[in-house]
Amino acid sequence: MQPMRVEVDSIGSVAIPAEAYYGPQTARGIDNFPISGIPISHFPILIKSLAYVKMAAARANVRLGDLDPGKGELICCVCEEIIAGQHLGAFPLDVFQGGAGTSTNMNINEVIANRGLEILGLPRGSYDALHPNNDVNLSQSTNDVYPTAIRLAILLSQEKLREALDLLACAFAVKADSFSDVMKLGRTQLQDAVPMTLGQEFGAFATTMREDVARLNEITSLFREINLGGTAIGTGINTSSDYQAAVVDELRSITGLPLVSAGNLIEACWDTGAFVLFSGMLKRTATKLSKICNDLRLLSSGPRGGFNEINLPALQPGSSIMPGKINPVVPEVVNQVAFQIIGYDLTVTLASEAGQLQLNVMEPVIVYNVLHSIELLTNAVDTLRTKCVSGITANPEYCRKHLEASTAVATALTPAIGYERAADLAKEVLATGKTIGEILALQADLPEALIAQTADLQALVRPARATTAP
Amino acid sequence: MQPMRVEVDSIGSVAIPAEAYYGPQTARGIDNFPISGIPISHFPILIKSLAYVKMAAARANVRLGDLDPGKGELICCVCEEIIAGQHLGAFPLDVFQGGAGTSTNMNINEVIANRGLEILGLPRGSYDALHPNNDVNLSQSTNDVYPTAIRLAILLSQEKLREALDLLACAFAVKADSFSDVMKLGRTQLQDAVPMTLGQEFGAFATTMREDVARLNEITSLFREINLGGTAIGTGINTSSDYQAAVVDELRSITGLPLVSAGNLIEACWDTGAFVLFSGMLKRTATKLSKICNDLRLLSSGPRGGFNEINLPALQPGSSIMPGKINPVVPEVVNQVAFQIIGYDLTVTLASEAGQLQLNVMEPVIVYNVLHSIELLTNAVDTLRTKCVSGITANPEYCRKHLEASTAVATALTPAIGYERAADLAKEVLATGKTIGEILALQADLPEALIAQTADLQALVRPARATTAP
Amino acid sequence: MQPMRVEVDSIGSVAIPAEAYYGPQTARGIDNFPISGIPISHFPILIKSLAYVKMAAARANVRLGDLDPGKGELICCVCEEIIAGQHLGAFPLDVFQGGAGTSTNMNINEVIANRGLEILGLPRGSYDALHPNNDVNLSQSTNDVYPTAIRLAILLSQEKLREALDLLACAFAVKADSFSDVMKLGRTQLQDAVPMTLGQEFGAFATTMREDVARLNEITSLFREINLGGTAIGTGINTSSDYQAAVVDELRSITGLPLVSAGNLIEACWDTGAFVLFSGMLKRTATKLSKICNDLRLLSSGPRGGFNEINLPALQPGSSIMPGKINPVVPEVVNQVAFQIIGYDLTVTLASEAGQLQLNVMEPVIVYNVLHSIELLTNAVDTLRTKCVSGITANPEYCRKHLEASTAVATALTPAIGYERAADLAKEVLATGKTIGEILALQADLPEALIAQTADLQALVRPARATTAP
Amino acid sequence: MQPMRVEVDSIGSVAIPAEAYYGPQTARGIDNFPISGIPISHFPILIKSLAYVKMAAARANVRLGDLDPGKGELICCVCEEIIAGQHLGAFPLDVFQGGAGTSTNMNINEVIANRGLEILGLPRGSYDALHPNNDVNLSQSTNDVYPTAIRLAILLSQEKLREALDLLACAFAVKADSFSDVMKLGRTQLQDAVPMTLGQEFGAFATTMREDVARLNEITSLFREINLGGTAIGTGINTSSDYQAAVVDELRSITGLPLVSAGNLIEACWDTGAFVLFSGMLKRTATKLSKICNDLRLLSSGPRGGFNEINLPALQPGSSIMPGKINPVVPEVVNQVAFQIIGYDLTVTLASEAGQLQLNVMEPVIVYNVLHSIELLTNAVDTLRTKCVSGITANPEYCRKHLEASTAVATALTPAIGYERAADLAKEVLATGKTIGEILALQADLPEALIAQTADLQALVRPARATTAP
Repeated sequence: MQPMRVEVDSIGSVAIPAEAYYGPQTARGIDNFPISGIPISHFPILIKSLAYVKMAAARANVRLGDLDPGKGELICCVCEEIIAGQHLGAFPLDVFQGGAGTSTNMNINEVIANRGLEILGLPRGSYDALHPNNDVNLSQSTNDVYPTAIRLAILLSQEKLREALDLLACAFAVKADSFSDVMKLGRTQLQDAVPMTLGQEFGAFATTMREDVARLNEITSLFREINLGGTAIGTGINTSSDYQAAVVDELRSITGLPLVSAGNLIEACWDTGAFVLFSGMLKRTATKLSKICNDLRLLSSGPRGGFNEINLPALQPGSSIMPGKINPVVPEVVNQVAFQIIGYDLTVTLASEAGQLQLNVMEPVIVYNVLHSIELLTNAVDTLRTKCVSGITANPEYCRKHLEASTAVATALTPAIGYERAADLAKEVLATGKTIGEILALQADLPEALIAQTADLQALVRPARATTAP
Repeated sequence: MQPMRVEVDSIGSVAIPAEAYYGPQTARGIDNFPISGIPISHFPILIKSLAYVKMAAARANVRLGDLDPGKGELICCVCEEIIAGQHLGAFPLDVFQGGAGTSTNMNINEVIANRGLEILGLPRGSYDALHPNNDVNLSQSTNDVYPTAIRLAILLSQEKLREALDLLACAFAVKADSFSDVMKLGRTQLQDAVPMTLGQEFGAFATTMREDVARLNEITSLFREINLGGTAIGTGINTSSDYQAAVVDELRSITGLPLVSAGNLIEACWDTGAFVLFSGMLKRTATKLSKICNDLRLLSSGPRGGFNEINLPALQPGSSIMPGKINPVVPEVVNQVAFQIIGYDLTVTLASEAGQLQLNVMEPVIVYNVLHSIELLTNAVDTLRTKCVSGITANPEYCRKHLEASTAVATALTPAIGYERAADLAKEVLATGKTIGEILALQADLPEALIAQTADLQALVRPARATTAP
Repeated sequence: MQPMRVEVDSIGSVAIPAEAYYGPQTARGIDNFPISGIPISHFPILIKSLAYVKMAAARANVRLGDLDPGKGELICCVCEEIIAGQHLGAFPLDVFQGGAGTSTNMNINEVIANRGLEILGLPRGSYDALHPNNDVNLSQSTNDVYPTAIRLAILLSQEKLREALDLLACAFAVKADSFSDVMKLGRTQLQDAVPMTLGQEFGAFATTMREDVARLNEITSLFREINLGGTAIGTGINTSSDYQAAVVDELRSITGLPLVSAGNLIEACWDTGAFVLFSGMLKRTATKLSKICNDLRLLSSGPRGGFNEINLPALQPGSSIMPGKINPVVPEVVNQVAFQIIGYDLTVTLASEAGQLQLNVMEPVIVYNVLHSIELLTNAVDTLRTKCVSGITANPEYCRKHLEASTAVATALTPAIGYERAADLAKEVLATGKTIGEILALQADLPEALIAQTADLQALVRPARATTAP
Repeated sequence: MQPMRVEVDSIGSVAIPAEAYYGPQTARGIDNFPISGIPISHFPILIKSLAYVKMAAARANVRLGDLDPGKGELICCVCEEIIAGQHLGAFPLDVFQGGAGTSTNMNINEVIANRGLEILGLPRGSYDALHPNNDVNLSQSTNDVYPTAIRLAILLSQEKLREALDLLACAFAVKADSFSDVMKLGRTQLQDAVPMTLGQEFGAFATTMREDVARLNEITSLFREINLGGTAIGTGINTSSDYQAAVVDELRSITGLPLVSAGNLIEACWDTGAFVLFSGMLKRTATKLSKICNDLRLLSSGPRGGFNEINLPALQPGSSIMPGKINPVVPEVVNQVAFQIIGYDLTVTLASEAGQLQLNVMEPVIVYNVLHSIELLTNAVDTLRTKCVSGITANPEYCRKHLEASTAVATALTPAIGYERAADLAKEVLATGKTIGEILALQADLPEALIAQTADLQALVRPARATTAP
């Protein structure tokens, strides 16, 4: 049996594992929220961000004379350990928790206090020397600490996502380059349309990913605005009048991030609009990735009964029963991640809508969904690039075969011969099984120059207008 | 300028078009809710259902001696007019409205009163002779009348949807029959899999639609449970003790529907679970239809650069620029309707979650989304059947071509030769471009009987196990 | 019976109402899509935007010598009529339609042609003189015309929404001003927290709406990027090489909007990311409005059994059964609109994800949901301002009563006496029913100066730190 | 460094931890899907369900003479170990995976083979003696094994959820009983309505939860229908003709569940409708729980500035800055879980819609979301019951105070004095601050008997009709 210690808080006494850095309120939180089994330490960046905030507050409090410098030093010392990745095990609370993050905030308050006491050679719980609320949480409330830490965590973790997206865009661009001569059939509504190159098709994937990197960058900047210093409801109760400026200044300096104070701290205390928009942006990226993966699966369908215009790398046998089958498993898993992120966005929306009066108590579930979205999306994008896109090859002969069998070039004739006659020629192609070239050769009245223009497929993948004029 | 009359209610005086049957509260509602421009009369079934309820209440009140028989007769008389489809124009309120349907309930109360007065030869507004609240709404509250009327409206309008789904299932079954000999490639993950018939593929569509008819039937039955008689919050305040049984009895008899009283009227007053489940069921059907339409679009993709295994009817020129192009426009519009219904289901869910204490004030938006879902889905299903499915034809030669070029029958060899060797043969097919038949002919050690088993494609679309045994 | 004319297109012959400006393809579209009963003319801004595009194309074609100047003049002339609001009845197609907007594009092509012919004194259908495809649609495809027109329609219609939001922010700011002296209890998690003013509460509403105006402005600018000139799939097939620059230039000049060409027209042809992000932004605003309306309903709850801190204007009798009841009907309808918009956002997302290869065929359902969202939201915001917010009054005595009966000022003591002792005092308040002032008066050891600090409620709604120091 | 062994499959050679029971395809899957870090063994019930299926297949194969009895025995022996909870660590694959569950199916095939070989004293990988595909997977495909195992997993895991819901209903019923005499104000639209008891309010919670248990029970029964025996696409390729009946029979007997074969195995292979409906049902329950938790938070709001009609158990200090604050943390976390489940339902819907042709490859993400929903919901419901509902107490004096100060009984007067006069009296109550009793006493013309009827509050919480008749 695990040795326990007992501590007392305003509710009563609580048993805590003797060696745990955390204290009574964390213990209560563990007991109260046996929900998902996923601890807050699943997101180390969140714990690290909380430590940044605690360190900034300690420094500001010392600077303003509100905290004993020795205590301040001790707090900063422990925060540095946490920032370095130590003590992750001391944060076992469930990611699902009532109380708007109070349990999480108290968890770090208690860990800092007890680890500080340990450094001083004092036993856990002797909070007179360093108190979780009166010292570590001085000039703070969960309601400004927690939202600030979340914003930091997102600012820090989205970097990797943007890098991943940028690399994926590059991988598509590389393919676009190497497929620039592969002539193929463009398709709209899954029906044969007009000529294009496979390079153009992959180039569009690169473009669209790059646009999302830019949008993500813009929207992420909303998180630079923080409500630290507003304390309980944004009025700044229990802070010295210079504290707010000081603590944001300290946090900016510690993290190196261009953080600014929200203009209206009352609003910033309950507003979760930035999460909704950011999550909506992740949803947009997920939606695009899903579309792209659907395209990759479609273009590689077959190999005999499908489009078969590209080959995805063969990563694993595709079936337990069908020998030789290879499946597009990576695009498929990216689709799945996209669906998850769209679902997560809904949860974020619901949680945001549920804010009431001076606070949004649903922030813990927002945090979980946003941080997990970033994690899943980053992993999915990296996997898509390294396991799939980089290894894609073209089947130029299939691409050309589809193009030549189609009526695609009939469109190019319309400026010269009109929509109706072009439609008749297209119908003849489909009815007879002849190629459009063969059909055109039979049209005595069409000038050879015109026919030649439509035969030059390369010319048809850019602005061009067939003409009967010499 | 329209001539106006003035009436007074507990808020003050209101100008009303002189000839309007509706009264001051409807007039206020019109003024207060200029939201969507869609009037409640967009759903005649809802107005009709309200009239059923009003008639049932009048009859019950007369039966119990709580209402003057002459007034009761007058109310019933107007209700019959409304049920017959008259006076739709007297219901101009917006479908979006605060107040949990009070405006809608007062609209019909006022219309019945004023039309009743007209029948008596009295001027609009002389409510002493027939009062919207004291007579027409006697023993009722919006909170039991409105939810009951909604349930009736759904019960009545979903009939058509079920019929439409049933007919669609039939249309698929007919095609399944006529395609029963068309051998084709089954596909999993868009990759060539094993043989099947096109009839089996369409038969699955029929089955899945029939299952949804059955589920819809079951779930719709939840709406038979009504809270009429519960009045304001389900306690039955302001009703005679025998009223609840009497009014449900009357309503059952008027509508011919097997309605029952909810077991707990307090709960039934705020509970919107039946809407959530029913809407979730519509979402399920929408999801299936969307999948089926995706399949139809995929199977008809091409005609030269796609699967081209079936032909959808050509309904309209497909492009303003591409002559001869035909698009699968009906499956596409069904996809769009499916997306709308999935979105509507979310709105229903959000509205349901927003119930508070003794009432769910968001019911008007639930009504709009559920009734519009039924309408859209019914129309989409009918269109899919008549404009698309009924006219689908097969391209048996393409079906067979894909099948024969593939490695599909390699799977059938595994029970006899094992997964690894079958995989090697499949690879050889793909590498050489030979057919599996040609490759098999080269395998000196394989008994002819075994090869013959895999050559009999018809045998491979049902349970079968290749064996080397004689 | 309506007199009919017959026209022939590439599918066959079609009967059309003799006087209709539209032609065979519109007639087919009407027949093919009997889905929602909502015509595309429900959004006049969409029709107007299409006319802008057609006029720009005609001008560019004339400028480049690709279109006869007389025909160009005729097209522009009809476009001006349409832009002026004429001919709306000529656009009866359902908003739900397959074909990626081809029917809608052909509708305006046909209307322009037939109205042009009428101006020339020629009968409908004599397209040799002005042809829907060869002339009106010259150098165009639905796939660049329609997405461009949608973008214009959004750019033009969101102006009103932003104005409405801006005015709502003002209305909140005005209230914030007039409530700046109303002391009240701030609440977190619906529990009594710390003091604030009612002005601060309403000021936060103003701030949050203003932020959304700014965000909306930024995100709307994405629609300035158009794919006009890309034609069928973005390659610009069937356009003169200078056409793209020319047509965008013309459209910019006609509309006065700062439009630019998308950098990659292939991508721009299928990409619907801007819709997803914009719709996500509308969702964010809806979410905030819903939260605010929930707050208004909560703060005005009662009047005897609720918070009763503010009064909403009495707009209509609240109940058909409960006399004297007044309900917060406007916030309620805004909640409903918010739920609708969140549902619409999901539909937009689903439609966006369903794009395939070179096109997103689901754009018609995106258009419907986005344009209807803008319409609903604008109306709801205007209604909220004019019918509710502008008339809100405060109940300062209830506000103060709640504040004084609570333990709110106990928090202010913690910097001086520590969390534990402050918690004990708070518990005593709740247990005894005494006010905190009375309890404090009994604490012999607390300096009067400290007690005085907490008694000055006005000082507690801004940064302040109680101290025992003199 | 970990010692490794090398195995070869149809793609090439793979390094595998020497001691791992799993083989090359699992190793590839681990490498290919580094997505969420959540292993499939997070759901032991899924692994157990797979083992049930493998055992049933082995038995059926032996029974039909298709599998060597010794091999069959060995397979069953390992399955029993897995069913007993052993070897969980051998299932490290990510829950997110492409390939429709093939990796998961091969994982158990490989684990059974290698553990079987170990029992035989043979080294890992010597599959001639027991082969993952040819023996363990005999007569099976991922496409029938995996969907069947999922269905089993849901059938088995939802039992706990139903129990949890049932116990919660009981807890509410117990409270309803003990609160049956607490008179209070019923509220609609957050506005004072008519009298009720707190017992009626809690009784409705019990009723609504019980209804959901019943609905859940019905909908769960859909999962009894399985597609085992259909193999790759439902045609039953590679099975003996009696296999399907035999394997379902075996599985029924092993699990004790009343399983039946789907009527159409082709449809059952791709259809995911049961998941959509079940997930929609979980969403309904989540929605109801969220509504109930909102009510609990509202009714316990205050304690001084809110409703304060009930007390939730004090579980933990509510704030790091506000001493003495207690928050409704358990209802809050249940709200969060509800939002998560609504988001998960969307993901399930998206995944279901994405099925194509003969298979839905997105099933792994469906499984994750459904099983995690069950887990979260079960935990949340248990927590709600044990940590919150069971300890709720009433504040009868506050309940009565709100009721008596309100105009609630004015409604009861309307049958006798009409809506208008009752409204006037209600207005007077609110304007003067007098109670309705005091106002009534001043009405000289109202019979005392009538006034007495409205003074008997207990009589007003059930059907009752005030009358002036003696």
